[in-house]
Amino acid sequence: MKIFAYGIREDEQPALKAWIAAHPEVTVEFTDQLLDPETAKLAEGFDAVNVYQQLDYTRETLTALHELGINKMSLRNVGTDNIDFDAAREFDFSISNVPVYSPNAIAEHSIIQMSRLLRRTKAMDAKVAKHDLRWAPTIGREMRMQTVGVIGTGNIGRVAMKILKGFGAKVIAYDLYHNAEVEAEGLYVDTLEELYAQADVITLYVPGVPANHHMINADSIAKMKDGVVIVNCSRGNLMDIDDVIAGLDSGKISDFAMDVYEEEVGLFNVDWSNKEFPDAKIADLIARENVLVTPHTAFYTTKAVLEMVTQSMNASLAFINGEKPSIAVEY
Amino acid sequence: MKIFAYGIREDEQPALKAWIAAHPEVTVEFTDQLLDPETAKLAEGFDAVNVYQQLDYTRETLTALHELGINKMSLRNVGTDNIDFDAAREFDFSISNVPVYSPNAIAEHSIIQMSRLLRRTKAMDAKVAKHDLRWAPTIGREMRMQTVGVIGTGNIGRVAMKILKGFGAKVIAYDLYHNAEVEAEGLYVDTLEELYAQADVITLYVPGVPANHHMINADSIAKMKDGVVIVNCSRGNLMDIDDVIAGLDSGKISDFAMDVYEEEVGLFNVDWSNKEFPDAKIADLIARENVLVTPHTAFYTTKAVLEMVTQSMNASLAFINGEKPSIAVEY
Repeated sequence: MKIFAYGIREDEQPALKAWIAAHPEVTVEFTDQLLDPETAKLAEGFDAVNVYQQLDYTRETLTALHELGINKMSLRNVGTDNIDFDAAREFDFSISNVPVYSPNAIAEHSIIQMSRLLRRTKAMDAKVAKHDLRWAPTIGREMRMQTVGVIGTGNIGRVAMKILKGFGAKVIAYDLYHNAEVEAEGLYVDTLEELYAQADVITLYVPGVPANHHMINADSIAKMKDGVVIVNCSRGNLMDIDDVIAGLDSGKISDFAMDVYEEEVGLFNVDWSNKEFPDAKIADLIARENVLVTPHTAFYTTKAVLEMVTQSMNASLAFINGEKPSIAVEY
Repeated sequence: MKIFAYGIREDEQPALKAWIAAHPEVTVEFTDQLLDPETAKLAEGFDAVNVYQQLDYTRETLTALHELGINKMSLRNVGTDNIDFDAAREFDFSISNVPVYSPNAIAEHSIIQMSRLLRRTKAMDAKVAKHDLRWAPTIGREMRMQTVGVIGTGNIGRVAMKILKGFGAKVIAYDLYHNAEVEAEGLYVDTLEELYAQADVITLYVPGVPANHHMINADSIAKMKDGVVIVNCSRGNLMDIDDVIAGLDSGKISDFAMDVYEEEVGLFNVDWSNKEFPDAKIADLIARENVLVTPHTAFYTTKAVLEMVTQSMNASLAFINGEKPSIAVEY
């Protein structure tokens, strides 16, 4: 049983090495190179490949694996939209992904950023860095005093609600699909309008499906409280960023944290230091004291990486053993 | 009924004005000036003074008030060690302070800073500020994966425990005096040694009494886990800062947040920007990516300020009405 793993980052190595140690019957080799038609030949003689990359899994790449007799590919991430499924079907590929690795990673990040906005840590950190150790006027607001509107009560939203309740915040929630536990606690409001009217802080945990496209826009912002705080660690296309910027400019939105951006592909996870930054809106937001920008890092924890590596390696092994792992992709 | 308030900061004005609006029968005047033998005369004709300052309440100052017929003084803060109690006794001063204004303000700050250390937000913020939007290698750790050792289970420590439990962290606690609720939950360990041996993160909520002086020192640090995270939003004299710095240098301590410092008087709440910074140790700590320094701002929230203003003004009024408020200082 031989698995070849591509694109292994340094932070994945501890989890991978632990998996290898726990599976002495399996031969595992790995590289930091990504899988492409050229590097595919590194997997010659192996039974399955294990991968994670934004680079497309093209017909050429899948053909190269097919010619080596490999038709088992386990992704360490969730996204499968960069796979040529026609080619995969033709070569009878077994594919798996990791749809759930750590809802807590994202939920925790969203609440940490929210608490930082309320506490004005960016302004205070900047003062401390330049040795201005006066506290006034950088006064914080307490989480427990906030009514927090949680939009989306799936896995991530519900973890966020648990953290918020630990802080003692008042939580209200909205979702088209009601979770039984949240329902029993009586936390749902009936409409987004009610949530907008009551919430001091609004945080999003809904998918970027067409129905949610630009749900945060000038119209919805107008329905929110003056001085609302908004956190989006969900999907970039949930917001009309121009309308959010206008809300910040007018003071309607007092603080904003974003981990996602509609135009993030090709912008995030790239080092632009000492280069011309290609997005003036994001440069402006990064520079604001009442805005926290992170480049889609909410998921990025040691626990999440452990889950991504472990679950995908288990799936690779299951495929080799002729089993169908629960995370096999149906296509 | 006339109350004169000294040293009113801008952030105190909303709370003070709300109190004034709710008490039309009371005449209130205020200044941003501190109370001293000179400014005492501003209170001529008033029944009581309301104060908050690090400047000493000297015999001269109290004499000046006494000569105006004023012997009622309500502090908006907790500390009374800058009052000349001999003079106060001689002039029969009625004094109150605000011993509990918002345990949540401090508990929240300590947990926010802890979560930031685990998430490495200082490093990530610095990268984003210079437009380096790569996430690796700045990987975070999740709160829920930590065993957090809470030292001190008074009001503040117990709020911190509630927040930690919301995150899903494993909480263990130590205190000489056991709280019944914490005891019932079975969270106490018997010795600090046990806590040091088990905790990934250690956070302090104990008073700076002589018995606790430098409890965090080379000996206790040696008993902690390698890579321990330490948070001190309690009292500066709990730590031997040289030993903490040595622990950071060796990597024994992976991250550290401090809101208090043994030598903070005269250093914190002062603007040193564009001046020579007088404390090389703190300058060094401020510059480190794995250290968060705040200048005793944990208490500084709108809710805490509201409580400080409201409770102290209520006490001033009680004194004028010949009543003894529950927060009267016995001396």
